[in-house]
Amino acid sequence: MSQKHSRPRPKNSNASERLSFIPLGGLGEIGKNMYVLEYEDEILVIDSGLKFPDSELPGIDYIVPDVSYLEANKEKILAIIITHGHEDHTGALPYVLPRLDVPLYGTQLTLGLIKNKLQDDLPGYRPTTFEVKEGDVIKIGSFTVRFIAVAHSIPDGVALSIDTPLGRIVHTGDFKLDSTPVDGRVTDYGAFAEEGDKGVMLLCSDSTNAERKGFTPSEKIIAGTLDQLFRTYKSKRIIISSFASNVHRIQQVADVATRFNRKMAFLGRSMIRNVDLARDTGYLKIDSKAIISIDDIWKYSDNQLVVITTGSQGEPFSGLVTMSRGENKAITLGDHDVVILLASVIPGNEKLINNTINRLFAQGCEVVYEKDKQTHVSGHASAEELKIIMNIVRPQYFVPIHGEYKHLVRHSQLAQEVGISQRNIFLMVNGDVLTFTKNQPPKKHGHVQSGAVIVDGNAAGSIKSEVLKERREIAEDGVLIVAAAIDDHGNLLAPVAIETQGVFISDDSKGVFNELYAASERAIQELAGKRANVEAVKKAVKTRVRDVLRKRNSSFAVVLPVISMKNSAYYDENNIFEKDFF
Amino acid sequence: MSQKHSRPRPKNSNASERLSFIPLGGLGEIGKNMYVLEYEDEILVIDSGLKFPDSELPGIDYIVPDVSYLEANKEKILAIIITHGHEDHTGALPYVLPRLDVPLYGTQLTLGLIKNKLQDDLPGYRPTTFEVKEGDVIKIGSFTVRFIAVAHSIPDGVALSIDTPLGRIVHTGDFKLDSTPVDGRVTDYGAFAEEGDKGVMLLCSDSTNAERKGFTPSEKIIAGTLDQLFRTYKSKRIIISSFASNVHRIQQVADVATRFNRKMAFLGRSMIRNVDLARDTGYLKIDSKAIISIDDIWKYSDNQLVVITTGSQGEPFSGLVTMSRGENKAITLGDHDVVILLASVIPGNEKLINNTINRLFAQGCEVVYEKDKQTHVSGHASAEELKIIMNIVRPQYFVPIHGEYKHLVRHSQLAQEVGISQRNIFLMVNGDVLTFTKNQPPKKHGHVQSGAVIVDGNAAGSIKSEVLKERREIAEDGVLIVAAAIDDHGNLLAPVAIETQGVFISDDSKGVFNELYAASERAIQELAGKRANVEAVKKAVKTRVRDVLRKRNSSFAVVLPVISMKNSAYYDENNIFEKDFF
Repeated sequence: MSQKHSRPRPKNSNASERLSFIPLGGLGEIGKNMYVLEYEDEILVIDSGLKFPDSELPGIDYIVPDVSYLEANKEKILAIIITHGHEDHTGALPYVLPRLDVPLYGTQLTLGLIKNKLQDDLPGYRPTTFEVKEGDVIKIGSFTVRFIAVAHSIPDGVALSIDTPLGRIVHTGDFKLDSTPVDGRVTDYGAFAEEGDKGVMLLCSDSTNAERKGFTPSEKIIAGTLDQLFRTYKSKRIIISSFASNVHRIQQVADVATRFNRKMAFLGRSMIRNVDLARDTGYLKIDSKAIISIDDIWKYSDNQLVVITTGSQGEPFSGLVTMSRGENKAITLGDHDVVILLASVIPGNEKLINNTINRLFAQGCEVVYEKDKQTHVSGHASAEELKIIMNIVRPQYFVPIHGEYKHLVRHSQLAQEVGISQRNIFLMVNGDVLTFTKNQPPKKHGHVQSGAVIVDGNAAGSIKSEVLKERREIAEDGVLIVAAAIDDHGNLLAPVAIETQGVFISDDSKGVFNELYAASERAIQELAGKRANVEAVKKAVKTRVRDVLRKRNSSFAVVLPVISMKNSAYYDENNIFEKDFF
Repeated sequence: MSQKHSRPRPKNSNASERLSFIPLGGLGEIGKNMYVLEYEDEILVIDSGLKFPDSELPGIDYIVPDVSYLEANKEKILAIIITHGHEDHTGALPYVLPRLDVPLYGTQLTLGLIKNKLQDDLPGYRPTTFEVKEGDVIKIGSFTVRFIAVAHSIPDGVALSIDTPLGRIVHTGDFKLDSTPVDGRVTDYGAFAEEGDKGVMLLCSDSTNAERKGFTPSEKIIAGTLDQLFRTYKSKRIIISSFASNVHRIQQVADVATRFNRKMAFLGRSMIRNVDLARDTGYLKIDSKAIISIDDIWKYSDNQLVVITTGSQGEPFSGLVTMSRGENKAITLGDHDVVILLASVIPGNEKLINNTINRLFAQGCEVVYEKDKQTHVSGHASAEELKIIMNIVRPQYFVPIHGEYKHLVRHSQLAQEVGISQRNIFLMVNGDVLTFTKNQPPKKHGHVQSGAVIVDGNAAGSIKSEVLKERREIAEDGVLIVAAAIDDHGNLLAPVAIETQGVFISDDSKGVFNELYAASERAIQELAGKRANVEAVKKAVKTRVRDVLRKRNSSFAVVLPVISMKNSAYYDENNIFEKDFF
C-alpha cells in the first residue's frame, strides 16, 4: 500500500523526549472510543467513536468526543487508525473528519462500513484512506504499527502493536479469544507473543467484560441454538433480529437456513446495506439463490422462510419494532410466526427491548430471547481471557481502557493477579495525560480538554450543556410563560398573556389563572416608572408567579417571562433583552 | 376479630347471578396491583398498589390505578384486602382511600407499614383496619376469605382463598416456595391442598418469574454469601444496602454481624422506620446492644462496624447514593470500606444503579454486587414452583396475574403444560371483565374504565396524558416562545419578543434570531386588519417560525406563540385565548 505519511524517525533521541498516551473517550464509559499517542510533534489517533445517549439527554442523537485538543494540534496529526467497524469506534468520524481532515487506516470491511456511513452523514466528503490487513507493518511518522488479527463480534478487527522511539505499546482494540470463530480467523496469539518477546512497555486492553468470570463462549454456539430452534419451529415462519454489523451471526443464520431449505429475506436499510457490503467483500458467503426480496415472501409458505431484520435493541423505526406495532408494510405477524432476538440487551436499551417483546407476544407470535436460550454471546474477552493476553504480552505498564469505571477497576485487579504491580497500573479518565520519558517511570501529567460533544438532529455543531439542563428542567415540570408588552416607562401596553406547556394545573384552574394574571401584572406595575430594566421586571414576574404556582398548584414549573418593549431594537448581539428602557 | 362487614349470604342463588373478576392494575405491567371481585351488589378489592414511572414520564412521582369504576360503584365495596406490605400492593392507598373510604384487611406487619405510609402521605386520615393472620377465615359480605401463609421477600404475606356463591377463587398474592425461609414460615402447602380438594373454580397466580426456569433459591443463601464476605473483608468497614422492607434480609445481616462482633448502624429514614416497626412487632430480632446510632460510628474501628442503608435501586436521595457522591453527612467512604449491594436491579433502575456503582468505585472502596456474588434472590416463584401450585390447587380456570404481557403468556404456557386446557385460561388486560355464571363457562365480557393515574409532586389530582405529551415534546427539542401584544385591529403594540428554553441555536445565532423576528412580525402584520382571531395569528406565527427554525437551525423546537391583546378580558373560563378581536 502507499505510504505518504511516514517521516524519518529522529536518529538521536534524547533524554527530554516524551511520549504521551491520552484517552479522549472510552474511559469511564462504554462508547466514543478515541485514544491519542503523541510523540514530540507527531500525533497518532486510535479510533473515533460515538456513544448513544440515554434518557437523561432528551432529544440528543449521539455523543462524540470533544476533540478540541486535536483541533489545537491539528498539524501534528498523522492519521486516525480504526481498529474495527463498530460505531463506538467509527461513529464520530462524520464529526471529526471535517475538523481534522487526516487520513484513515483500517482493514477492508472497516473502511467499507465507514465509507457507507460517510456517504450518508457527510456526502461529498472523500476521506483519504489506507487499507491494511492483519500482519501488515506500517510506518506512520515515528510510529511503526503492526496490525494483529483479533476475533470480535464483527469481522476484520485488529489490535495494534505500535513501536515508538520510547517503547512498544500494544492496544488490543475490542477482542475475545474465540477458539472457534465463525470465519476461522483466530486472535493471533503468535503475533501478541512475538511483541511480548520483543518487550512491551504499555498494554492498553479492552475492559468491557472484566467483571465476567471465566471465558466468553464462542460465537459458534449460536449455530447450535439456531439448529435447535429451526427444528422446534419447523412449521412456523421464522423472523430473526440481529445486529446488522454482526456478519458472523448473519452467516450462521444463512448456514442453518440453507440446511433447512428456507429462503432468506432481509429487511431494514442497514441490514441490507451491510449484507451487500459483506457479501461483495467476501466476508459473508450466501448463495444468491438463497436470498429473496422481502416483497416476494408471499410466494413462499411459512416453513420456507426466514426473515432477517434489525431492531434487536428496540430501535423505534427498525423492522422488528414496526412489526411489533403491526405497522410494518412488508410483514404482518401472527400465531404462525416465531420471532428470535439473536442479540443481547445493550445497557440502556432494556425498556425499549422489553416493550418490543411484550408487543410481539401481543401480536400472537412466539418470541425467543436471551431469557430462554443462548441467543447471544459477547464479543469481548472475559476475565480469564484478559489474564491470558496480559501473560502473553507481559507489559511493563498497564492501562485498562474501553470501560466504565467499575470495569477499569476490575481489570486493574486482574492485572495485579497476574503480577503487574499496582504502581505500574494507571487508572485513567478521559483527558488524562500519561507521559513516558527515557529515564523516569511514566506519570500522569496534567489533563487536556476532553468530554462529550452532543450532536442533535442535523445540527452539525455541538450543544451546550446549559441547553440540556434547560430541557431537563422543562421536562420535569413543564413551562409557564408570561408574555407582556410594556412601554418606555414600564407600563403594560396590554393585559399579560399566559400559556403553559406540560404544566399540571389543578382542578380550580380558573382560580389559579386569575391569581397568576393578577400577580404578574402587579409585579410589572410596581416597577413601572421606577428605574428598572427588563431583567428586573422578569425577575419580579418570575418570583411572584412561582409563589402562586407553588402555593396554589403545588407546581414547580419553569416560569419564563417574555417581555417586549415598545421602543426596543430587534436584536442586540451582546445583550438581547437587557437594555435599560428609561 | 371484629367483623362489621359481613352480610348474610343470599339463601337462594339463582341462575342469573354473576361473579366478575376485574383486574384494575397489575396485568401487562409489574406494579399497581389491584384486583376486583364483584358478586351482585358486593365488591371486594384485592390490593391497591402503585407503580414507579420510567423516564418516559418526566417529573412524575408515581402511578396509581384509575379507580373510576370503583368510585362509580363505591356503595358496593365491602373492603380492600391487602396481601402484603410492598408498595406495588399498598402504595395507591393514599390516593384510593380518600376516594373510597372503605375498611382494610391485612396482617400485622402489612397494616403497620400502611399506617406508617398514611401518616406521611395522608396525615389525619384514620383508616378502618381489620388485622388478620394466616389461617383466619373471615366472612366479608357474600365472600368468605381464608388467609394462607406464603413466603415472599417481606414477612407476613398471605394468599387468599375466597369462597363465593359461584365458586372458590384462589389468589396467590406474591409468593415463592422457599423451603427454608428465614422466619421459618413456609408457604402453607396444606392449606392450598385443602382448598384444591374442596374444588377451586379459578386460580389467579403471580406471573413475575414465569420466564425463569427451575426454582427460585431460598432467601437463606444470602446468609452464606454474607458469611463469606464478612470473612473476606474482615478488616474493612462494611456498608450494606438493601430494600428497607426486606426484613428477612436485614435479619440475616444482623445475625452475621452479631456473629462477627460488629455493631450495626442504620441509615436512612425508611430503613430506620421499618426496622423499628419490624422489631416492635417481633418480625425482626436484634439485640438492642448490637445497634448503635449512625452518629456514634466514629467511636468504633472499621472491623467493628456494619452500616445498613437504603439506596440499592440508586434512589437519588438515599444513603448509598449520597455516599457515592461524597455528600453524606454521616459517613465518608474510602479504601477502608467495602460496600455490598444486597439487592438486585429492578428493571428500569439499571442506569441509576450502574452510575452509583461506578461512583462508589471512584470513592476508592471495594464494591460487591450481583455480578460477583449471589447478593440477591427473588421473592417470586419460578416456573417449577408455579407448576407445583397449579398441581396442588388444580383449578378449573386460570388467570395469570401480576406480570407484563410476556410473563402472562409464559405463565399460561406453564398452565397448559400441567394440563389446564387453553380454553380454560384467560389472558386478561387491565379493565377486562371475566364473568362467571351458574350454568355457562366464564367469558370475557366487556371492559370497565381502567388505566393509569399519574401523581405529580404534592398535586393530589391526576395529570392528563396531554400534559405528559407536552412535557415529552419540549424535553426533546426545547421550546421557543414568541410573545406579541396586539391592538384591536391586530397591529403590533411593540416589537415581538422571543425567548428559548432548551433550544439549540446554531453558531450564527444573530442571523437566526433576526429571521425569527422578521418572520413572526410579518405573520402578524399580514393578518392585521383582516378578520382573523388570535388562534389564526398564533397559527401563522407558528408556521413561519417553524420554517425558519428547520431551515436555518435544523431545530424541531416546540414553537409557542403567546399573544396578548389590548382589550381582552383577563380570563374566560371556556375560551381563554380564543376571542375574536374584531
